[in-house]
Amino acid sequence: MTSTEPSGPTTSLDELAAQLREQLGEDAVPWVPDAGYGADRAVRPEAGARFVLVLPRDVDGVQTTMRLASSTGTPVVPRGAGSGLSGGAAARDGVIVLGLERLTTIREIDLLDEIAVVEAGVITADLSTALAPHGVFYAPDPASVAISTIGGNIATNAGGLHCAKYGVTRESVLALEVVLADGNLLRTGHRSIKGVTGLDLTQLLIGSEGTLAVVVAATVRIHPLPVARRTVLARFPSAAQAAAGVGAISRSPVRPAATELLDAGTLADIDAYTGARIADGDNAMLLIELDGYGIEEQAADLVRTLTGAGAAVRVIEDETEAEKLWELRRSSRAAGGGRARLGEDVAVPKSRLAEVLAELEVIGRRHGVRTSVVAHAGDGNLHPGFSMPGVPEDPAAELPAAILDAADDLVRMALDLGGTISGEHGIGSAKQHWLDLELSPDSRALQRRLKDAFDPQHLLNPGKAL
Amino acid sequence: MTSTEPSGPTTSLDELAAQLREQLGEDAVPWVPDAGYGADRAVRPEAGARFVLVLPRDVDGVQTTMRLASSTGTPVVPRGAGSGLSGGAAARDGVIVLGLERLTTIREIDLLDEIAVVEAGVITADLSTALAPHGVFYAPDPASVAISTIGGNIATNAGGLHCAKYGVTRESVLALEVVLADGNLLRTGHRSIKGVTGLDLTQLLIGSEGTLAVVVAATVRIHPLPVARRTVLARFPSAAQAAAGVGAISRSPVRPAATELLDAGTLADIDAYTGARIADGDNAMLLIELDGYGIEEQAADLVRTLTGAGAAVRVIEDETEAEKLWELRRSSRAAGGGRARLGEDVAVPKSRLAEVLAELEVIGRRHGVRTSVVAHAGDGNLHPGFSMPGVPEDPAAELPAAILDAADDLVRMALDLGGTISGEHGIGSAKQHWLDLELSPDSRALQRRLKDAFDPQHLLNPGKAL
Repeated sequence: MTSTEPSGPTTSLDELAAQLREQLGEDAVPWVPDAGYGADRAVRPEAGARFVLVLPRDVDGVQTTMRLASSTGTPVVPRGAGSGLSGGAAARDGVIVLGLERLTTIREIDLLDEIAVVEAGVITADLSTALAPHGVFYAPDPASVAISTIGGNIATNAGGLHCAKYGVTRESVLALEVVLADGNLLRTGHRSIKGVTGLDLTQLLIGSEGTLAVVVAATVRIHPLPVARRTVLARFPSAAQAAAGVGAISRSPVRPAATELLDAGTLADIDAYTGARIADGDNAMLLIELDGYGIEEQAADLVRTLTGAGAAVRVIEDETEAEKLWELRRSSRAAGGGRARLGEDVAVPKSRLAEVLAELEVIGRRHGVRTSVVAHAGDGNLHPGFSMPGVPEDPAAELPAAILDAADDLVRMALDLGGTISGEHGIGSAKQHWLDLELSPDSRALQRRLKDAFDPQHLLNPGKAL
Repeated sequence: MTSTEPSGPTTSLDELAAQLREQLGEDAVPWVPDAGYGADRAVRPEAGARFVLVLPRDVDGVQTTMRLASSTGTPVVPRGAGSGLSGGAAARDGVIVLGLERLTTIREIDLLDEIAVVEAGVITADLSTALAPHGVFYAPDPASVAISTIGGNIATNAGGLHCAKYGVTRESVLALEVVLADGNLLRTGHRSIKGVTGLDLTQLLIGSEGTLAVVVAATVRIHPLPVARRTVLARFPSAAQAAAGVGAISRSPVRPAATELLDAGTLADIDAYTGARIADGDNAMLLIELDGYGIEEQAADLVRTLTGAGAAVRVIEDETEAEKLWELRRSSRAAGGGRARLGEDVAVPKSRLAEVLAELEVIGRRHGVRTSVVAHAGDGNLHPGFSMPGVPEDPAAELPAAILDAADDLVRMALDLGGTISGEHGIGSAKQHWLDLELSPDSRALQRRLKDAFDPQHLLNPGKAL
């Protein structure tokens, strides 16, 4: 065994499955696992890859699995709902896929401590549903909220639409319960907002994409539902002006809960997909949500700010219309389907948004690729889409080189502007090849040593994230 | 050299000082360092301890110092302003004290990116002063804000009064520039709110009390100054009822910017110290700051909530009166001086505040010690004071055993209630003996391995925090 490669397993997959079945019960180890358990939404199942799927019923079952994995030297791919967008849960031949989907207990909702204690397999939206009757909510809301799990959100430090105001997943997690590579259970963090005892293992584990330990439960912050909400729609003649509108908000006293930028390409895609007429002749749009006290004052300040930045602004008083607009926004990922397509996820300092948008058009022309953008503009996080309308979508085929080249240009441009190669999706296996562009050799070496400190056998999600 | 103890230096202190003087200039290495540079506000200078004091002018000077330290195996104690309350910057014989106080450049204030880039030695209040003309502010505000540095705040993940709403220091730091043990410079993090590339070294470094690397600069978030502020004063017949008032706020939709609880002992101390008559016959007080939009609505909701919880509530419309109240609150640390005294810093789940307050009185009686409390109640962080009015203050003497025993009882009680031994001051050297009460052997072993990953020679702030 070298220090950087996992040792080969000492037990055959069939023996391993038999042992796990004996210890965890028949139902926890399917005889013929669905190949989909080896994939996520970015990476297809590896052709011919065989793996053992384990779906423990409880934390104890996760510990048993990890004990067996470490005693046999078998690599483990922890998995939430497989909704990841960077291949973080992709399996390869010979591994254990450790699915947390049955750890779905919401152990506790405490309104006085303003926390909930949830198991890793809880679907994020299910937590919101459980909280709503109490008048509280869990803030992180990645677009995948209806299908992704709290554990997966923690593994990727998932973002979403409301991060500029409410923070990313990291800001909502106070404590973790994780199973270490050797099967031991470790509790980190605290149940109060403050706590500074020792190194902050909680924060290091968040976003580590299952490479350091397996998250099995978390103590998360909850907030009172806002006393009011208001949607504001601002139409701009160009994407550059919409970006300038984002800057105008930064210089104003208003801080929206969400500030989504949709460019002409995205608006056209949504219209084609839904039959709505959201584009309405405009070239870019900011769809904004305000919330909290003084909603009229907030809306007035925002309207003044955006009008001054050249927008045609409308405060949406009708809640049904507002909900319809947010639905259209959420449809932007599905819209534009049917053709070969790649969605990216860079973040830049938000003052550079206009430059990214301008350069993206240049990149599209250079490679003969259609581009479109939807951005969480308030935190500088863009999801540019690259597509080739003439090439039909084929999940089994590689993407056209022109698309991959265009994405590569985008990533390099984002880095040149002081940005990052992943705003919220994570590195997984899909973005490994860009890591050295962002991280220095010192940083990467240090990260490998931290990995060694947690997982000396390199069993946990090998080949991902780091 | 063992793996847990630093090797002894291979060069005498005088030779080391001479080499540093040659490389950094005479003025960077004082011939006779003030003994105070070996202490902080919790720990006195070690009698007879000799150390080399280095005050580099720039980042390069910090790198030079660390290179020489690592090549000679000399331990280094990084130091901000020495305002720490847990001995984190205490020096022992034979070390280099690396003071960051001359790294005072505010490199950048960017209103569009909503960030500032500041060097570690910038006094936190000086950053606020620089930001104010732009209509923005840096949120973390430990009580030491006028004397402590950004670097020191980052090293301890400092808290303060506004954390329940604005977060602790951690939530305001996006990126770091640190000097590693070997003298190399490492940049971590990003300039956008989002960024998930690799393990989050920024977050691991925050709160690591100078044991992993030397923070030399940081990119921090800034926020628009609130459009309005309002102070609300709620008087309660007992500390238990004030704690219940905190719970009532948690169940309401209002989230104050600050919620300070002062018990009868603290109110009496403040009155005796300042001549104010803040106690006014009451047994406990919540001093609350609201800010943001809809301030009248917020105040109305808060008044209703606290009146319902049995308080006599007054909204302070007069700004001078409000400022006077906050000044009295800030005086609580100085108040009660002149007698032997210890200020503690535990945090508990905030639903347990009433229990801590009740049990604290029992502890006081048990040990014949006077107790008082001021608490950042909104985040469950209490600063109980233990004093013996009959015993005069003597910085050179050990504290009476009764005080130390009472503090020990408090810490154990806080842990029993699901709390932590330090809410915001850090562990330093002063709280080492309590670490095993909170952290499991697995956690401590893991933290030592992370330390090894950063600092294999164990040169950085040995014997602190971990």
